Amino acid sequence: MVAIRIGFVSRREEESVLLAERLMDEIESWNSGVQILADGDLALTIGRPPSSVQEMERLKVDFIVSIGGDGTILRTIHKMADPVPILGINMGTLGFLVDVEPADALETIKRLLSGFVVDERSRLKLLLNGVCMPRATNEIAFLTASPAKMIEFEILVDGSLMEDFRADGVIIATATGSTAYAMSAGGPIVDPRVDAIVLVPMAPFKLSSRPWVMPGNSVIEVRLKLPEKEALVVVDGQSSTNISTKDSIVISKAKTPARFVKAAKDGFYAKVKSKLA
Amino acid sequence: MVAIRIGFVSRREEESVLLAERLMDEIESWNSGVQILADGDLALTIGRPPSSVQEMERLKVDFIVSIGGDGTILRTIHKMADPVPILGINMGTLGFLVDVEPADALETIKRLLSGFVVDERSRLKLLLNGVCMPRATNEIAFLTASPAKMIEFEILVDGSLMEDFRADGVIIATATGSTAYAMSAGGPIVDPRVDAIVLVPMAPFKLSSRPWVMPGNSVIEVRLKLPEKEALVVVDGQSSTNISTKDSIVISKAKTPARFVKAAKDGFYAKVKSKLA
Amino acid sequence: MVAIRIGFVSRREEESVLLAERLMDEIESWNSGVQILADGDLALTIGRPPSSVQEMERLKVDFIVSIGGDGTILRTIHKMADPVPILGINMGTLGFLVDVEPADALETIKRLLSGFVVDERSRLKLLLNGVCMPRATNEIAFLTASPAKMIEFEILVDGSLMEDFRADGVIIATATGSTAYAMSAGGPIVDPRVDAIVLVPMAPFKLSSRPWVMPGNSVIEVRLKLPEKEALVVVDGQSSTNISTKDSIVISKAKTPARFVKAAKDGFYAKVKSKLA
Amino acid sequence: MVAIRIGFVSRREEESVLLAERLMDEIESWNSGVQILADGDLALTIGRPPSSVQEMERLKVDFIVSIGGDGTILRTIHKMADPVPILGINMGTLGFLVDVEPADALETIKRLLSGFVVDERSRLKLLLNGVCMPRATNEIAFLTASPAKMIEFEILVDGSLMEDFRADGVIIATATGSTAYAMSAGGPIVDPRVDAIVLVPMAPFKLSSRPWVMPGNSVIEVRLKLPEKEALVVVDGQSSTNISTKDSIVISKAKTPARFVKAAKDGFYAKVKSKLA
Repeated sequence: MVAIRIGFVSRREEESVLLAERLMDEIESWNSGVQILADGDLALTIGRPPSSVQEMERLKVDFIVSIGGDGTILRTIHKMADPVPILGINMGTLGFLVDVEPADALETIKRLLSGFVVDERSRLKLLLNGVCMPRATNEIAFLTASPAKMIEFEILVDGSLMEDFRADGVIIATATGSTAYAMSAGGPIVDPRVDAIVLVPMAPFKLSSRPWVMPGNSVIEVRLKLPEKEALVVVDGQSSTNISTKDSIVISKAKTPARFVKAAKDGFYAKVKSKLA
Repeated sequence: MVAIRIGFVSRREEESVLLAERLMDEIESWNSGVQILADGDLALTIGRPPSSVQEMERLKVDFIVSIGGDGTILRTIHKMADPVPILGINMGTLGFLVDVEPADALETIKRLLSGFVVDERSRLKLLLNGVCMPRATNEIAFLTASPAKMIEFEILVDGSLMEDFRADGVIIATATGSTAYAMSAGGPIVDPRVDAIVLVPMAPFKLSSRPWVMPGNSVIEVRLKLPEKEALVVVDGQSSTNISTKDSIVISKAKTPARFVKAAKDGFYAKVKSKLA
Repeated sequence: MVAIRIGFVSRREEESVLLAERLMDEIESWNSGVQILADGDLALTIGRPPSSVQEMERLKVDFIVSIGGDGTILRTIHKMADPVPILGINMGTLGFLVDVEPADALETIKRLLSGFVVDERSRLKLLLNGVCMPRATNEIAFLTASPAKMIEFEILVDGSLMEDFRADGVIIATATGSTAYAMSAGGPIVDPRVDAIVLVPMAPFKLSSRPWVMPGNSVIEVRLKLPEKEALVVVDGQSSTNISTKDSIVISKAKTPARFVKAAKDGFYAKVKSKLA
Repeated sequence: MVAIRIGFVSRREEESVLLAERLMDEIESWNSGVQILADGDLALTIGRPPSSVQEMERLKVDFIVSIGGDGTILRTIHKMADPVPILGINMGTLGFLVDVEPADALETIKRLLSGFVVDERSRLKLLLNGVCMPRATNEIAFLTASPAKMIEFEILVDGSLMEDFRADGVIIATATGSTAYAMSAGGPIVDPRVDAIVLVPMAPFKLSSRPWVMPGNSVIEVRLKLPEKEALVVVDGQSSTNISTKDSIVISKAKTPARFVKAAKDGFYAKVKSKLA
């Protein structure tokens, strides 16, 4: 009888794949009650039956082990409507979403088999002309498609004009994403327990522009104003779509959160300290 | 029978006093059911029986009309444990707390007699060695007492070390205060509906320091580290107290909020736009 | 006998073209000693013999009247190896290079016929694999070609490593350009009399990154590090070229400056005040 | 016959004093042609005849060895009208002026006996009501004397209004000082070879305020505007003087520079990298 199911996804490079293979083999050697699923390419590379993230979601695996960086995690979450918890094994990146070092991976997973806490993080939903794009765990960035040409925005919050500005772009981030791209662009560090959305103008023409922190349940409408300039919307640095002044763009909190297996003892502030010091 | 009670406080300069007098006289001429109370000096200057803000709070006046700037309002709220609503008449300053222009004061008050909405804003409580200081509507600022000498802080949030840094000072602000001193020091604009506390280091030595946004229910402990340097704690730019490394300093959300009469039709974003544009 | 030669360039939209035509007609009506040259499209639109900016440079016109915005001026200067002085007539933009309002254009030009002062401004020369690109009056910007993907740079100054960083891009600006794109990206305002080059990282990953001010005679080498990412180099927001990690990129002060007719009485600080207030 | 004279100054704490004593003893044991002078308290503590920095300047010692941090160096330079070169031995601080680690001190000094290069750095002269204050190697800071109360400034450059603003203060720094207090307040990093003065507003009320870089030969007048508020002027974080709206305050480049013995092989950029990384 299957007591627990674990999915595996991995970055393509060899080191991550080898670690994934070793972890799966070890776990199976402990306990016949654990069922392992391996994502597509990873599975084929190491000679296991291929599954998919969608299948893992459908089967409600207890958690997915992601071996790589923040990008690997973000892409995995994008594939799920109601994401199962993720455990991030850190392969040499500086990400805020990866919690466990490779050397500690096996011991951590062993410990999690007897129970774990899930950390839920709000995501953002982007409706582009009424069609839902991948939900954002970190941020939705609106960027000029013609580098060095500013775009002009109007931002409406709950139906009222918040700001109009010319800039290279604007980042609309979750609290989770406040320590990612939004921070490089000058935004504040927001504790993920704060129910908030962060908006950071990028290289704004108006010098008095500042980052904003808005209620988590805000409905944000982004209007492109300048007809002759093209823009892009990029979700979590992963998927990019062209937009124009005719498009309707509405952002709000997603119904389903991202979920992370809480593996580290340290809290948010200790993590920020260790990453930014 | 008294249907409604209104308190009046005013800045000392003549223009504010004259407006206060005119408003009180006019209101009494309309309606015998309105009882007017005038604060100490103001009352004496214009020959009315003197009351006090404490008396206004005890009698639960429906609201207090404050004629002056943000400072007048902040000092008035400091005098109350459970503040009654304030209506701010703007005498030439750029404050975010004053809502009504002098020319609109009479008409606004008339309208309010038949009912009004109260906007509650979280305040911060500062326990200095266990003794409660005036509750902060805007911010609590910790500043070096020897200009151009940095002080060293440790900030603990809910018992865990958040950050330690050397700086000219640190501002711990409410969402309401995010558009006051905290903003000059580089903090984000926080919608007052977000339940959050903002922390902004001032001229930090460590270049990677950033503003923080923390949950509104955080318990924040501030520890001074360098024994030879003196520091000050200043609440809402009004009251200043010397502190040293031996002092216990704990900040948390106050039980009672500041209250404002909602007089403007426009919301927070329109106000920011009009003040910062 | 021709005493003075004036060239005219203009933005394409009707208002600028009409002003150009009116100015040329008026000037010719005053004085047969003034020879007028009109640039290509402008000339054809209003039925004059077409000249070119290159021809104006070759004939050493006394100055070129540019009707439009900063972009019109920047494009005009790009066409000249040793630029003749420019007089910018401001058609509704907020540029720092345009000095004269349309209503004052005629009177200003009349005054200039009896003599004027030339303001020389250093330009930057970009050698891309040894080939000279248009010289920059404002800035040379290196930007990611895949929005939301950072690029990695190494910057060498006079042969020594200055900084290596990951960022959306980096702006290398003249003092003149310090009030243009570099300022939006967070750079300081540099008085054009300071012999300096400004370097501003854009949305840098490393939070301690700061803008730099370097000697005007610095030789700056920019090395792209990440092989898989493409980047663009954009000169004065006008011309864009793809670059890769294999390219040699060297920036230094150009031998010939941009030249501007000094038309305003006010100096640099008054101009900044009027544009940024 | 005396071939070379070396002065010694030291911080008061034991470790610095012991190092000073050991260095002086060692140097004298090598070479009878070296004459050692020890500053007041240091000399008395270790039983040598006391000299003074003024005496070292008068005798034109070849260089002064300063054992301590940047503060020790800045105080030493303040005592000289035409400073002799300084060699800074770094006792545990993060200063930009100290070049040599204690372990390398002896070897470095030995090497310098056969010749060295002097790095000249511009200083700022502050005339307060026509009286010259200590010349600034790093910066002159104007700060509110009532913490959390802004002061209002007018800054004139070469007789023309540059900016007027309300702020906690303003820092006027040399290029050398750009990596000290001015950097914490948000200023750019200025290569010391750039002939420039940096002005950085501190927590300015006006959000569009930016740091400025001005020509090194600018004559800067600072006018306090608000009569009721007191302010301080602090030179190099060392000496503090009260100022009021009646005072005449003029800043310009000092005739005599600070001088540093060039002991490190690495240049300015390598130093910044090592201090800020």
